[in-house]
Amino acid sequence: MERIISNQNSRVKAWAKLSSKKGRLENHTYLLDGWHLVEEAVKANAKFHAVMATSSQMALHLPEVPHGVPAFEISEEVAKHIAGTNTPQGIFAEISLPEKTFDPAYVHDGAWLLLDQIQDPGNVGTLVRTADAAGFKGVVLGEGTADAFAPKVVRAMQGSQFHLEVLNGDLNQWVDALTNNGLPVYGSQLNEAAQSYRDIEPSTQFGLILGNEGQGMSDELAAKTTANLYIPIQGQAESLNVAIAGGILMFSLSLGNE
Amino acid sequence: MERIISNQNSRVKAWAKLSSKKGRLENHTYLLDGWHLVEEAVKANAKFHAVMATSSQMALHLPEVPHGVPAFEISEEVAKHIAGTNTPQGIFAEISLPEKTFDPAYVHDGAWLLLDQIQDPGNVGTLVRTADAAGFKGVVLGEGTADAFAPKVVRAMQGSQFHLEVLNGDLNQWVDALTNNGLPVYGSQLNEAAQSYRDIEPSTQFGLILGNEGQGMSDELAAKTTANLYIPIQGQAESLNVAIAGGILMFSLSLGNE
Repeated sequence: MERIISNQNSRVKAWAKLSSKKGRLENHTYLLDGWHLVEEAVKANAKFHAVMATSSQMALHLPEVPHGVPAFEISEEVAKHIAGTNTPQGIFAEISLPEKTFDPAYVHDGAWLLLDQIQDPGNVGTLVRTADAAGFKGVVLGEGTADAFAPKVVRAMQGSQFHLEVLNGDLNQWVDALTNNGLPVYGSQLNEAAQSYRDIEPSTQFGLILGNEGQGMSDELAAKTTANLYIPIQGQAESLNVAIAGGILMFSLSLGNE
Repeated sequence: MERIISNQNSRVKAWAKLSSKKGRLENHTYLLDGWHLVEEAVKANAKFHAVMATSSQMALHLPEVPHGVPAFEISEEVAKHIAGTNTPQGIFAEISLPEKTFDPAYVHDGAWLLLDQIQDPGNVGTLVRTADAAGFKGVVLGEGTADAFAPKVVRAMQGSQFHLEVLNGDLNQWVDALTNNGLPVYGSQLNEAAQSYRDIEPSTQFGLILGNEGQGMSDELAAKTTANLYIPIQGQAESLNVAIAGGILMFSLSLGNE
């Protein structure tokens, strides 16, 4: 097995570039950091390009890595460099970005989360993880939303990208298509006509739009929804974190995979 | 107004020390970073020790700072040093830590959130903010939980510490006292006897315990609860982020300040 100890090694430079969207799109791959994520990718039959691990992590996990995947032993220093953090677990995989073309015109069921310009990577990743737990069929990331395969998003998703669809899409097109196909689409803009989320009967098929942390969802989308929902705020808090609001709405609206 | 441009200035050194728990306990003060938080402290009649701002922030906000509070103009460099971040807004206040002695034996109503060894500062702050929005009366931080006045917690609380009680406490003592006073106390340990949170009628007075991100709540506390609740997980997700789980439970269990 090739052993890599220098951050100047050309493979290491290529792996480090996967922290940027440009690097990921050029290579059509992204990085998984930590055994939990690598294991989820193995279970999901993801397309592996490489597994890189420190000697101790390699000793622990090599038997579980699919045959034929190039494996590289890396130093602790290289592990830190690839991870961009000081305390990585020491095992990584480079896998293919999902190659999905998904036409919303063919979506006739399931619960779908639509993210409109949500910028914080931790929020985006946590929302994907929560959508998975709430039994959603997919999450659509509109323009201006943090990239689904950025390192902080991948960390927060905790492998949920292998359990439900995670797609980029034009949210206007999605809202139109879901509406045409008879699915209600709920927005989360607080306006005069907005309804409390508690008044909506849970169901198995609908769209839910969450908007930007500061600005909320776009007016253009809000004008197209079946209903806009609000969460009644008690006390003197001004608002909820968007990931918390999303969790409350998703678990209240969704009957899950029944 | 005194103008401070050096990070070696003794006041600057003292403010920077407030980022550590030791520094806060020695001074009995903590820092607010950004006008939103300073304004909340003004509204709440907090005890101010100092306001520090860059010249542009001082020009904007000095008229709203309470009279008699020592004000210091600071350079951008000093602002970054105090904030510990690269893009602070440029206005800070040093205010007193709350001096609360709160005997749970006298707690006969309200909804109370008890945090058992929750370590991530963002989770702790977001949970306090969410408890505020859900109409809770207070949050009790047990041993091993991140300090409520650490900079990252303060940022995530968004001023909610001025709207509800935020206390340190012995959670065993709290659970015993609430139970003695007739309030149900719900845990969040997944065990054989656990009930779905959807089966609990919302109310205005109860305790809710959330546990550590990895380990969950302590067995000792779980054995004392009225009931342990779980959130039914769909799909293949293994768990929810503790702040998301807390948000779902708080909004489902609480009728708010009715």
